[in-house]
Amino acid sequence: MAKSVELKNPHLNAMNSDYLYHLNINVPNTKDTSDFQKQFGDVRVVCAGGTKSRMYELALHLRDLLKIKKKDSDIVDLSESGHRYALFKVGPILCASHGVGSSTFSVVLHELLKLVKYAKCEDPVFIRVGTCGGIGVPPGTVVVTKNAYNGLLRNEHEIFILGERVVRPARFPENVIKDIVAYGASADDDFQIISGNTMSTDCFYEGQGRIDGAICEYDENAKMSFLKRCHGLGIRNIEMEATMFASVTYHAGVKAADICVTLINRLNGDQVEITMETKKTYESRPFLVVGRYVKKLLE
Amino acid sequence: MAKSVELKNPHLNAMNSDYLYHLNINVPNTKDTSDFQKQFGDVRVVCAGGTKSRMYELALHLRDLLKIKKKDSDIVDLSESGHRYALFKVGPILCASHGVGSSTFSVVLHELLKLVKYAKCEDPVFIRVGTCGGIGVPPGTVVVTKNAYNGLLRNEHEIFILGERVVRPARFPENVIKDIVAYGASADDDFQIISGNTMSTDCFYEGQGRIDGAICEYDENAKMSFLKRCHGLGIRNIEMEATMFASVTYHAGVKAADICVTLINRLNGDQVEITMETKKTYESRPFLVVGRYVKKLLE
Repeated sequence: MAKSVELKNPHLNAMNSDYLYHLNINVPNTKDTSDFQKQFGDVRVVCAGGTKSRMYELALHLRDLLKIKKKDSDIVDLSESGHRYALFKVGPILCASHGVGSSTFSVVLHELLKLVKYAKCEDPVFIRVGTCGGIGVPPGTVVVTKNAYNGLLRNEHEIFILGERVVRPARFPENVIKDIVAYGASADDDFQIISGNTMSTDCFYEGQGRIDGAICEYDENAKMSFLKRCHGLGIRNIEMEATMFASVTYHAGVKAADICVTLINRLNGDQVEITMETKKTYESRPFLVVGRYVKKLLE
Repeated sequence: MAKSVELKNPHLNAMNSDYLYHLNINVPNTKDTSDFQKQFGDVRVVCAGGTKSRMYELALHLRDLLKIKKKDSDIVDLSESGHRYALFKVGPILCASHGVGSSTFSVVLHELLKLVKYAKCEDPVFIRVGTCGGIGVPPGTVVVTKNAYNGLLRNEHEIFILGERVVRPARFPENVIKDIVAYGASADDDFQIISGNTMSTDCFYEGQGRIDGAICEYDENAKMSFLKRCHGLGIRNIEMEATMFASVTYHAGVKAADICVTLINRLNGDQVEITMETKKTYESRPFLVVGRYVKKLLE
C-alpha cells in the first residue's frame, strides 16, 4: 500500500490548527483533516518552478496531456490572496511557483510538505522544473540532477539552525531519476535528456563564477578553471535550488527530482543571448519530460 | 558634487552592451548610455520589497506624497515581460519586488546596481521595506536594521565564490539609519520606530527556530534559549534578506537601509495570527517611514 507522508517534526502533532502562511491556506483542524483531504488528498505529484506564468502553462499542459476536464479559467491560483506564491491544481497534480533560489523555494517547500501530510497524499513525488546554465552541454539540453553540489563543490547542503552550522546530504532517489530519464524521452525529440550533477548557488553572479555582476573580484582565467573543475566533477548544470531541494526532501523522506533545461553553455560565456522564441522552446522541454513521466506514473 | 556609482567589477568596462536578464532590461550601448540616463538618470532612491502588489502600493503612496503627476495606470511594471520581478518608477524613485529571501533578492540587487551605474544616478540610496518577526518588541514595531547577523549569530555574510567560502561584513551606514529614525517618525504615530540588530536567515522555519515547519529536530526549550540569545545580542527582528543586502551594498559602496515591521513577537509563538486588516495596517508603516525620509532627502 502506498504510504502517506510522515514529517520529521513531532511538534506538528501537538498543534490543533495550522496556517500555511505564505500559501495563505488554513488547516483549521489538524486532528480531523477530512475536508482538507477532499480538496488535496488525490495529489500524487507536486511540481514547482520559478514563475507563476510558467506554472500556469505547465498546469495547462498537464491538463491536456492527462485529458482532465477543466476550463482554462477554472485553473485558478489557490494562493493568490497570499501575494507570494502561485498554486494551481489539475487533477492529481499541484503546480507551485517558488521564485528564484533556495531561500524562497525553501519557504514554500516546507508548506507544501505540510500540505501533503495534512491531506494524507499517498507517496507524492516532488518535481522541480526550471531553467539553468549548462557546463559543456549544448543549450537546450535537459539535465535531471544526480548529485547536488553546493558552491563549495560539496555534495551537501548547509543550513544554520539555532546558531549552529548543520550539514545535510543533498540526494535525489536514483529510481526516480532513472524513471524520468527512461520515460521522459521520446524518439522524436530534437534534444537530449541526460542525468548529471548540478551545482546550486545562492548568488547568480559571483556564486556562479560570472564576470558580469555588480561585483567581481576574480578574472576570466580563475572563472574558467572553476567551471572546468565543476565539469570534472560531472557537474553539467548550475542553478539556485538543487542542494536545498534535495536535502529537505531527502530529510523529509519524500521522493523528488530536479529537471532543468540549459539556456547557455557557461564554457562559452556569461550572458543569456538566445532569442525569446528559442527560450520559450527550451522552457517547454522540461514540461514535455515531466508530462511523459507523470503520465507513466499515473497509469 | 554628488557622486555616481562605481561598481567593483572592472569587467563591466570591457562590455559593449549588457542585458539585465531577470529585469528583462537591455543596455544596448554601455559606452554611451545617454538614452538610458534619460529613462533612469534621475533616480535617487531604489526601494525594494517582497511582493509586486506591495511595491505597486508603495509607488502609489510615494507618488501622492511627492505630488508626482502620474495616473495609476501610468505606473507600469517595467519588468513585466521578464515574469520574475516587478519594477515601478515614480519620479526619482524605483520600487522593485525582490521575492522572499536573500537568493532571489541578490539576483535583482546586482541588476539594480548595474542599472544605477549605467544610468549614472547620483549617490542613490537603496532601501528595503518589509515584514519580519520581532524579538521582545510589540507586533507593529518598525525596526531599522543596525547590524545584520546571519544564522550563526555573526555580524557578517557568507557567500561561496569559485568554490571558496568568502565572509564579508554586513553593515549599513550609520548616518542613513540615523536619518531614517529621525525623519521617519511623526508625533501622531501609534507605533514605535527603533534601530536594532537584525538576524537574517535562508530558512523561515528551521533557520528561525520555528517548531512548526516540515522538519524540526529541537524542542521548545532549545528554541527559546536561542531566541533569548538573539535578544541578548540586541537582535530585535528576524527576516531573510538583511545580511546579504547589507554586505552587497556595503561592498558596492552604495548607501542602504533595511526597514521592517514586526508581525509577531517570536518570544510568544511561531504562527502569524494577526487579522488581514491588522497586517495591512502594519505593512503600511514602513511605507510611512520611508515616505517621510525620502521627502526630506529630496528637499
